[in-house]
Amino acid sequence: MPRNAVVLLSGGLDSTTVLAIAKREGFEINAMTFRYGQRHQIEIESAQRIAAQARVAQHVIVDIDLRMFGGSALTANLDVPKGRDVSEMGKGVPITYVPARNTVFLSFALAWAETLKSEDIFIGVNALDYSGYPDCRPEYIEAYQRMANLATREGVEGRQNLRIRTPLIDLSKADIIRRGLSLDVDYGMTSTCYDPSADGRACRECDACQLRIKGFAANGMEDPAQ
Amino acid sequence: MPRNAVVLLSGGLDSTTVLAIAKREGFEINAMTFRYGQRHQIEIESAQRIAAQARVAQHVIVDIDLRMFGGSALTANLDVPKGRDVSEMGKGVPITYVPARNTVFLSFALAWAETLKSEDIFIGVNALDYSGYPDCRPEYIEAYQRMANLATREGVEGRQNLRIRTPLIDLSKADIIRRGLSLDVDYGMTSTCYDPSADGRACRECDACQLRIKGFAANGMEDPAQ
Repeated sequence: MPRNAVVLLSGGLDSTTVLAIAKREGFEINAMTFRYGQRHQIEIESAQRIAAQARVAQHVIVDIDLRMFGGSALTANLDVPKGRDVSEMGKGVPITYVPARNTVFLSFALAWAETLKSEDIFIGVNALDYSGYPDCRPEYIEAYQRMANLATREGVEGRQNLRIRTPLIDLSKADIIRRGLSLDVDYGMTSTCYDPSADGRACRECDACQLRIKGFAANGMEDPAQ
Repeated sequence: MPRNAVVLLSGGLDSTTVLAIAKREGFEINAMTFRYGQRHQIEIESAQRIAAQARVAQHVIVDIDLRMFGGSALTANLDVPKGRDVSEMGKGVPITYVPARNTVFLSFALAWAETLKSEDIFIGVNALDYSGYPDCRPEYIEAYQRMANLATREGVEGRQNLRIRTPLIDLSKADIIRRGLSLDVDYGMTSTCYDPSADGRACRECDACQLRIKGFAANGMEDPAQ
C-alpha cells in the first residue's frame, strides 16, 4: 500500500513541482490548499485543476482568515512592489510576508498528517529566492520538525518519524523549473503572481513574476503561464 | 505603556486563571478564542463574558474547522468518556485529544503576537492533570517556543524574545483554583465540561468535570459552576 503524504499546494510553481516530486517518490497525495484572504484567489482555482490532473487521493481547501492580523501586502490593501531589481529581493523581510503563514499552514498539515498516520509533510519553501521570509529558512524548518515530533500521539509514544520535506529548499528557480520539466509538470496551469488582474493574468512585474520569468529564461523558455 | 500579551482563552477554568495571572503581571490583554467545531460551544459564550468582565483590550473569535481531521470525541460524534476514575486519566492519549490542537492554536497566536509586537503568549496547558495530551508537555512547549523564535521577523533579525508562557504547567487543579481565587477569578463564569447539556449545564461525569469538582473540594468548596 502506498504511503500517505500531505502536500501543501498553493497552485504556484514551487508547490506544483513539490507535488510532482512527492508523486514520483510513490506517495499517495493528500493535497491541502488554504483560502486565507489572499488577494490572488485565482491560485486556488489553479490548485484545484492541478490536484485533479495529478489524481491526488484527497484535496482539501481550508478556510482561515489571516487578514485579521494585517501587516502584509498579500492580504491587506497595501501595494505589491513592482519592478524591483531581482538582486534586491533577498534583502530584509518583504512587505508580501504574511505573519507566521507557514507556521499556520504546517500546523493544519500536521493535524491532518496525524489523522492520516502520514509521516511526510511536503512544503515548497525555498531559501534561495525567498531568503527574506523567516519561515522559509532551513533552521526554521528543522525547529518546526522537532516541535512537530513532540506534538502528536507518536511523540508521546517516543516515535519521532515525522518529516517536513522541503525538496526545493536550496534550489534556484531555474533548477526548480528544470526539475519540474523532467517530471512533466505543466507550468501553464500554475499561478504565481502576487497581484493578478481580475481575469487572472499575471502582472509580470511583482517579485514572484520576475523570478519566474527569469527562471524560465535560464531554461531557454518563455513562461507558459504568462 | 503596558506591554501586550496574547492570551488563549477557551472559557474554561484553566485559561480564565491564566488570563487573571497575565493581568496581574500588568499586561494589556489580547484574548483569542477558537470556534473549532467543538461540541461544547457554550464555552465560547463563557469566554466572551469572561473577556468583557476582565476588560481586555481586544478579544477575537477565530473560526477554524478541526472537525475535518476527525479522530476526537470533542469534535466528532464519539462518546465522551464518563465516570472514569481520576487516577486513570493520565494514562495514554485520551479520546478527547484533538490532533495538533495546541499547535494550531499557538500558530494563530504567534501570527497575532507578531502583528501586535507582543513577546508573550499565554496558554493554560497543564502537564499534571493532562499528562496524556502530547501538546501539554513541557518539552513540547519548549520546542514550540524555539521554533516560534525562528518563524518571525524578529527571528530573522536575531531577536529571540518570544516566550510561550505556561504558568499552570506544573500545578495541580487544586493549586490552580487556589491561585485563581487569590486573584478574584469568578469561577462561576467558566465552562469546562466536555459534554454539557443543551442549556449549558455541566455533566459532572466527564474527565474535565471530575477534575474540577475534585479541585474545588480540595479547597473546601463546591464548584460554583456546577
